[in-house]
Amino acid sequence: MSSTPLGEFSLIARYFNRAATDGNGVDLAVGDDAALLSLGANEQLVVSTDTMVAGSHFLAEADPRLVGHKALASNLSDIIAMGATPRWVSLALTLPQIDEAWLAGFCDGFFALAKAYKVDLVGGDTTKGPLAITITIHGTIPRGKAWLRSGANVGDTLYIAAPLGESQAGLDFILDNSLVSEQRDALIERHFCTYPRQDLLLPLRDKVSAALDISDGLIADLGHILRASHVGASIDVDRLPLTERLLAHCDHNWQKAVTMALTSGEEYTLCFTSSAALDCAALNIFPIGVITEDTAVVLTAQGEPLDWQLTGFEHFGDSCGS
Amino acid sequence: MSSTPLGEFSLIARYFNRAATDGNGVDLAVGDDAALLSLGANEQLVVSTDTMVAGSHFLAEADPRLVGHKALASNLSDIIAMGATPRWVSLALTLPQIDEAWLAGFCDGFFALAKAYKVDLVGGDTTKGPLAITITIHGTIPRGKAWLRSGANVGDTLYIAAPLGESQAGLDFILDNSLVSEQRDALIERHFCTYPRQDLLLPLRDKVSAALDISDGLIADLGHILRASHVGASIDVDRLPLTERLLAHCDHNWQKAVTMALTSGEEYTLCFTSSAALDCAALNIFPIGVITEDTAVVLTAQGEPLDWQLTGFEHFGDSCGS
Repeated sequence: MSSTPLGEFSLIARYFNRAATDGNGVDLAVGDDAALLSLGANEQLVVSTDTMVAGSHFLAEADPRLVGHKALASNLSDIIAMGATPRWVSLALTLPQIDEAWLAGFCDGFFALAKAYKVDLVGGDTTKGPLAITITIHGTIPRGKAWLRSGANVGDTLYIAAPLGESQAGLDFILDNSLVSEQRDALIERHFCTYPRQDLLLPLRDKVSAALDISDGLIADLGHILRASHVGASIDVDRLPLTERLLAHCDHNWQKAVTMALTSGEEYTLCFTSSAALDCAALNIFPIGVITEDTAVVLTAQGEPLDWQLTGFEHFGDSCGS
Repeated sequence: MSSTPLGEFSLIARYFNRAATDGNGVDLAVGDDAALLSLGANEQLVVSTDTMVAGSHFLAEADPRLVGHKALASNLSDIIAMGATPRWVSLALTLPQIDEAWLAGFCDGFFALAKAYKVDLVGGDTTKGPLAITITIHGTIPRGKAWLRSGANVGDTLYIAAPLGESQAGLDFILDNSLVSEQRDALIERHFCTYPRQDLLLPLRDKVSAALDISDGLIADLGHILRASHVGASIDVDRLPLTERLLAHCDHNWQKAVTMALTSGEEYTLCFTSSAALDCAALNIFPIGVITEDTAVVLTAQGEPLDWQLTGFEHFGDSCGS
């Protein structure tokens, strides 16, 4: 087999991005957090699929309860990032053999989160093979109300819906057993256990101009909004919320903590833009910058541009370490 | 890890079959060919997920064009077996590395069939890991018109929508390179390339009492209809259509060919029951038996019962060879 380095996104664009059949109700296909499909006159169906492979997205020896939580959380986040209400999931589970303790743990994590978000498992497939989990999730939204990546306007405020960085900090411990810290277990749990911001759907319904799910890191994911909206952004890194735990993990090295917040993947929370005056304290959201005309991301601190070099993460391609 | 032999179906029942949330629009969840979900007042959404793992469902060295066809065909068949029109698919592709020749071949097979069935790819995920394909397919159907497994009535005629057995014959060649036959290549192609009977949706709309997709073998799959409908069936093996190619493959051993037709998996065609007078020649369908009160499957030939021992196929459990 020949291997050519291609990013995940160019792979999707080259092979899978085809024109939809006329009249088949495809309002938006490949290219956002989820597809938008027409059924009734007043409602759209929102569909997203994610795969987690053991060894690549989690270690086979990871706590199955945490794996079950993360598998569902990453999918809930895609639907919520479209502004839609998660409704139904299908689960395709590939297992090397039946391990009832693993299955019981996985189901504990999966169904506890499903219950909390009022999402029902409506089908799936169990197969024998290398451990992997594919979830397809379905949400619904009033027609025309979806938060797309393409709606950001110059002057909009840029927000994130949670402090970032702890997912990467947790991953550091997962990947290096020799790391020692009082916060090890809490950060590993934090890596797996995110709670996508379903509570923001109603208050932000008509106030978001563009949104997406932070899965590959803020800088990498923000790039999708900027390209789709033909705009740029300026991020004031002084306004990035940094948790005490993240700062402690980074030995109180501020630049290291900020860099981790800007690039940490699998955060499964919202990045969005809005021109509305939002009550950040009441909504527990964080304004971190502004949308600009200049089609680039500029980082500033104390009003001065920074020249840090940051890169995102792609599953295939030069920047892929695994 | 401990391993306990459990059939795929008991695995699903034990861990994944939970009561749906009230008011969440789940009309039918786990347990048929697909889930039935409510959106509009007049239409239902039909959703099914299937995984194919290299080494278990196909060999990694199989022609990628045939793999792409089979992956989609098996999912189309689930939706058609519900009486629904296939509309949209999501594709989760896990690849050990990017192989452009493999991807191009896979897409050729996948999209040729998608185009023929007017189905659109609306999303998916590409990940790095052991070669596997998970497809989630969506269909739509007028409310209340779905063909369930639970509607068979005593006296209904039992039909199949294609001659069976050649999928298994093709698999024999795939699994044993030393087998030699003029029909080797054609039967291997036949194993991968099934064309689910979408043409039957309209003529059979209100005439089917129960239906399912033949994926694990006629006898094993028919069992699901019989259990769900609390009935039995008598199959007249003299009426099973046997192709010349299958008979030649079985050295014209009639019992061997019939057994292969009754147990061949991955046929991806319909098995259904009906009380209507159907024009079998015009519809290209085959009446092979009758639904009985007795909750068992009886095989007869020339009016006499046969005592053949046949078993179905399950991915996990005692009968699973792979």
